[in-house]
Amino acid sequence: MEKNYYTLTEIAQIIGATLQGDPTCKIYSLASLDKAQAGQLSFLAHSRYQLVATSRYEKFLPTTKASAVLLSPSHARDCPVNKLILDDPHQSYVKLASIFVQKHTPNVGIHPTAIVGQHCHIAKTASIGPYCVIGDHCTIGDQTQIDMHVIINDHAVIGKNGHIHSHVIIHRDVEIGESVLIHAGAVIGGEGFGMIREAEGWKRIPHLGRVLIGDHVEIGAHTTVDRGALDDTLLERGVKLDNQIQVAHGVVIGENTIIAGCVGIGGSSKIGKNCMIGGATGITDNILICDNVILTGMSQVTKSITEPGVYSSGTGILPRKVWHKSIVSLRNLRDIVKKLRKWEENKDE
Amino acid sequence: MEKNYYTLTEIAQIIGATLQGDPTCKIYSLASLDKAQAGQLSFLAHSRYQLVATSRYEKFLPTTKASAVLLSPSHARDCPVNKLILDDPHQSYVKLASIFVQKHTPNVGIHPTAIVGQHCHIAKTASIGPYCVIGDHCTIGDQTQIDMHVIINDHAVIGKNGHIHSHVIIHRDVEIGESVLIHAGAVIGGEGFGMIREAEGWKRIPHLGRVLIGDHVEIGAHTTVDRGALDDTLLERGVKLDNQIQVAHGVVIGENTIIAGCVGIGGSSKIGKNCMIGGATGITDNILICDNVILTGMSQVTKSITEPGVYSSGTGILPRKVWHKSIVSLRNLRDIVKKLRKWEENKDE
Amino acid sequence: MEKNYYTLTEIAQIIGATLQGDPTCKIYSLASLDKAQAGQLSFLAHSRYQLVATSRYEKFLPTTKASAVLLSPSHARDCPVNKLILDDPHQSYVKLASIFVQKHTPNVGIHPTAIVGQHCHIAKTASIGPYCVIGDHCTIGDQTQIDMHVIINDHAVIGKNGHIHSHVIIHRDVEIGESVLIHAGAVIGGEGFGMIREAEGWKRIPHLGRVLIGDHVEIGAHTTVDRGALDDTLLERGVKLDNQIQVAHGVVIGENTIIAGCVGIGGSSKIGKNCMIGGATGITDNILICDNVILTGMSQVTKSITEPGVYSSGTGILPRKVWHKSIVSLRNLRDIVKKLRKWEENKDE
Repeated sequence: MEKNYYTLTEIAQIIGATLQGDPTCKIYSLASLDKAQAGQLSFLAHSRYQLVATSRYEKFLPTTKASAVLLSPSHARDCPVNKLILDDPHQSYVKLASIFVQKHTPNVGIHPTAIVGQHCHIAKTASIGPYCVIGDHCTIGDQTQIDMHVIINDHAVIGKNGHIHSHVIIHRDVEIGESVLIHAGAVIGGEGFGMIREAEGWKRIPHLGRVLIGDHVEIGAHTTVDRGALDDTLLERGVKLDNQIQVAHGVVIGENTIIAGCVGIGGSSKIGKNCMIGGATGITDNILICDNVILTGMSQVTKSITEPGVYSSGTGILPRKVWHKSIVSLRNLRDIVKKLRKWEENKDE
Repeated sequence: MEKNYYTLTEIAQIIGATLQGDPTCKIYSLASLDKAQAGQLSFLAHSRYQLVATSRYEKFLPTTKASAVLLSPSHARDCPVNKLILDDPHQSYVKLASIFVQKHTPNVGIHPTAIVGQHCHIAKTASIGPYCVIGDHCTIGDQTQIDMHVIINDHAVIGKNGHIHSHVIIHRDVEIGESVLIHAGAVIGGEGFGMIREAEGWKRIPHLGRVLIGDHVEIGAHTTVDRGALDDTLLERGVKLDNQIQVAHGVVIGENTIIAGCVGIGGSSKIGKNCMIGGATGITDNILICDNVILTGMSQVTKSITEPGVYSSGTGILPRKVWHKSIVSLRNLRDIVKKLRKWEENKDE
Repeated sequence: MEKNYYTLTEIAQIIGATLQGDPTCKIYSLASLDKAQAGQLSFLAHSRYQLVATSRYEKFLPTTKASAVLLSPSHARDCPVNKLILDDPHQSYVKLASIFVQKHTPNVGIHPTAIVGQHCHIAKTASIGPYCVIGDHCTIGDQTQIDMHVIINDHAVIGKNGHIHSHVIIHRDVEIGESVLIHAGAVIGGEGFGMIREAEGWKRIPHLGRVLIGDHVEIGAHTTVDRGALDDTLLERGVKLDNQIQVAHGVVIGENTIIAGCVGIGGSSKIGKNCMIGGATGITDNILICDNVILTGMSQVTKSITEPGVYSSGTGILPRKVWHKSIVSLRNLRDIVKKLRKWEENKDE
């Protein structure tokens, strides 16, 4: 039987922490400071990567029931239980979580209910789950796991070590690199929304482009990535997309850019490398965003961004009555400004 | 053959209304005031629960072609046809709609194309539709209806009297209470978007938490509810979520809170009981919202809310030219305010 | 073997352009100005239909490696390669794209793994793909293509020449016209989010309405269109919806109105004909929008619009520090305006 715990001594060695406390204490699982119980390890960390800093968990430290806490030297004094001290508790927590998480190993091979087309190259170590449908001329790499009810259309390529969750749809000609993770229900390579107005109504433009996805990209549940009209839609290496994001035709997203849920990106817009885009942001068509831009949540991007930095939009929330008065005033703001200018001119005379 | 109508006398008895008009008049179905025809019953009600009051239907009352109208005493005078009078027409309409709606009774049992894993406890009165795939160690309660192409992963639990629509995905370890309704395509329990920046790029944090769903919860089509990183994501009893909502890792939503479509809720945010959240609202990470808060549509929540009440965001719409001038002025608002302060100081001297 | 190129003479004839250059030059495919190589045709056009004008591609004209460029007379002087000159390059590009795109012809008939109910009328020239499930009393018209894993419930009607992509769900009683295109994962006819508050919590209103969809309508991937509570939800002829749009119960969208991705439309709202609605716009419940209205991206519609024209919302993006100061000032705007009024009154005395 597999051992289902680690001692604090073992954990300190794994992550390179200084242990203050009982070296034989057994840790069975991880939990947050306010919910942890005996046998559980917790952690306290200010993430350097969150758009909004938080000290929400700090107050739970003095009363935590965890058997031990992973924390930085600056918090050690306030910790009432066993301590694992190091400089980056967040990163070490991730390492430990990888150890404590239970890995699900799928059966290798093609499930008898899966339908596979002609001229496909499917690696022997790949796994194709129940009721998947794969078209002709498709390639699936080594160790790649295709869950259930996944649809992969003609000429699609998926690299090795990938994981395609259930109900995903990969349209024709899509090319996906290595170690790509696509969550449930995502749709990759659908026709974009390129329309032209003719006498009898709107007419669809045929979309000749593909979708190209680099290595180590991750795409969230129900995210949609359309194929390009002329050029390919491109997600470069290391791009991470959360759930329910809409990526329109011909969009390019640069290396290691990370995008939170519910963002919409208009056709042919190009986002640089190492950007961080907050949830529910809207980016209109044909926008260029340079590298290293941070957009906070619900940003409204209607023109290109050429300087790195942090940008925001919106009014935030106000009590409804205050909001209503402010908004009415906002509509008259131009007149107020004009009036002030006039006064100023008169004053100067 | 089943009777396909009710007389006004019968309807008046069912809902406890006062009838003014023909007691033998037959009602075959329901319709709105402006579209109703002979044989149909309509209603007029100001909902107490809508965020925006409306009198849109009132104008159709004098010319309605309905055979009868359900309304409050204050509207009775203006009704040209048979009247069913009571204090809460909206609530009674719901009761009647339940009677007039045709119930679809699914076949009980497991469809021969469904694939069920090992060690599952599936109630004999449950219904599992075509092409469903159920993992190992799953539990499905009495009278629960699982439609088509539903995927339920290992160790998931679904209580009795539930209804899981087609194409829904329930990930591993998710626990769902009694009388829960999940609409088409919802994804429950996917990995959250917890990432950490390492030298070579963003790295996914393993998500050890589950999703727990209380009794009488409802989840809309294509809504996504991620599992927690450390703690469980929790939808308490009676929570109602509309379509296309994103609930991130570790979110808690309190009892009887109702959330309209397209809302995004960031990781670890906690929303209180009896809240009403308007459509397309964005709530950033690590926010706390107290009980009894109402947020109108497209609210932008970037800090916690500690007082019950109604809150709003945004500028509303303006004709584009007016909007453009106001927005330019808004960018200079800080300077305007400074100038005013200076003038005020000079004035006081 | 099929010819896989067209000469510039042939192309000039097809689209009615004036050719300046080599009439025997062979074109194998289309590409954008900056990416085109030898053997490819490109184009330069300012779309009259985009909400935001762009000259992004103009700068690539002098250095393009395309074999030929499709452009208007005003750009001809700056083109260094073969030219195809006409007044509307965008429209002609669409025509050519239709010629160069590879058509996928599905197998006609019902796949052996598809499950079809009783009393259905399925045209002999229709195509039903693998693992589709079709209920009782359904009708599917001539030449209509139903891809894979599509679910069509009882009494649904789909007209001729339609294309329903994979994983789409059509609920009971939905009626769909001719030449309708529904992209992957869309959900049509789910129960709307009509709720009423009762003592024990929110209770669902039964939804008696249907969804009716006119000819030539297009619905994007993962878009959800709910059935009406009382009245039908209605998408009129020629309506075009992009991905991830939420259309609530009882909404009406007028002829040839086009709506970009991620828009949310609240219950019973009615949008006129020939409107253009930018992405991520939110329209609250019970709104009326007249014909010929343009809403730019992220518009917040909280009251009805009775005059045609262009409307906008939001603050746009600002560098975060500037934004923060402006927003704080916005909250005090009412006080500023009051102070100004007072001063003005004093001044006049």
